[in-house]
Amino acid sequence: MELLKQRILKDGKVLPGNILKVGGFLNHLIDSTLMKEIGKEVCRLFEGEKINKVMTIEASGIAIACAIASELNAPVLFAKKHKSANVADSVYCAKVKSYTHGNENTVIVEKEYLSADDRVLLVDDFLAHGEALRGLISLVNQSGATLIGCVAAIEKGYQGGGDSLRAEGIRVESLAIVESMSEDGVIFRN
Amino acid sequence: MELLKQRILKDGKVLPGNILKVGGFLNHLIDSTLMKEIGKEVCRLFEGEKINKVMTIEASGIAIACAIASELNAPVLFAKKHKSANVADSVYCAKVKSYTHGNENTVIVEKEYLSADDRVLLVDDFLAHGEALRGLISLVNQSGATLIGCVAAIEKGYQGGGDSLRAEGIRVESLAIVESMSEDGVIFRN
Repeated sequence: MELLKQRILKDGKVLPGNILKVGGFLNHLIDSTLMKEIGKEVCRLFEGEKINKVMTIEASGIAIACAIASELNAPVLFAKKHKSANVADSVYCAKVKSYTHGNENTVIVEKEYLSADDRVLLVDDFLAHGEALRGLISLVNQSGATLIGCVAAIEKGYQGGGDSLRAEGIRVESLAIVESMSEDGVIFRN
Repeated sequence: MELLKQRILKDGKVLPGNILKVGGFLNHLIDSTLMKEIGKEVCRLFEGEKINKVMTIEASGIAIACAIASELNAPVLFAKKHKSANVADSVYCAKVKSYTHGNENTVIVEKEYLSADDRVLLVDDFLAHGEALRGLISLVNQSGATLIGCVAAIEKGYQGGGDSLRAEGIRVESLAIVESMSEDGVIFRN
């Protein structure tokens, strides 16, 4: 998505530790106009797929999921990070490792909100190793719902999570795929 | 807001421990159509106020903030829960007590995203004791920005947080104010 790529080049910052900082428009301060355009683009990409649920994980995926869901006229379901390992029978749960924070979270969704009738699009702001999406995929599979595909605003292509999911036959659409980055700038995959 | 009140009466559940469960449309599974209507209503309430930033706290305020920001054509800024008490010089921080979770979080926003030029609307899904809004107000005050007002989707009127803020001269608009609730149902303030 050209608009997003241009914005990353203009306002994104590459920080030490392989961090692409996009807090000025994507995941801390959030540009509503850019969100609307992302929503329209994803709606176009998945036209005809009859998606009836857009699912993400708290917190930074929620804004993008809402923008997409608004265009699709579908509800958003966000997986919650759960404090303890003890979860109720009424929820699906999965473990998600975070490379950024160096920890592991249990994420949950309530069973009553996800069922075998659902056609689900998974959404997140970043896709790197793919751990968050794999957690969400596990929740979808537990429910028996149909996974239509995954969307990331920004994929770190060189970390392999997206390609690994694609190799398994899962449709993964990333709006900007970073092939490499350094202090000199960001290079996108064509 | 009549649409929201009707939805609470239809799909909300009163659970033991003074919990009003609205996860089916407001803060777990999120109804995009209802969000759009909330956005329009808040836009109407604050017409002419030249709000240029809609601020909330992760995670369950983000969807509502995005819907309002979309109507106002303003960006969303969400305060992040911070793991440790050690925060960088580059952020504003405030402590927020959670009665629901029985703990206290430090919340932060990066200084570069909030400044004295901003006219800020604060948004959250619930307003009970007002701790989350007071944390956000502290962040706004630290930055020198102008606080235009606060919006909650649902206020628990009997817990006093909203009226306490109003008594201090802060504009608080709640779309549904619960006066009392029990297994028999929910009664709204007129």
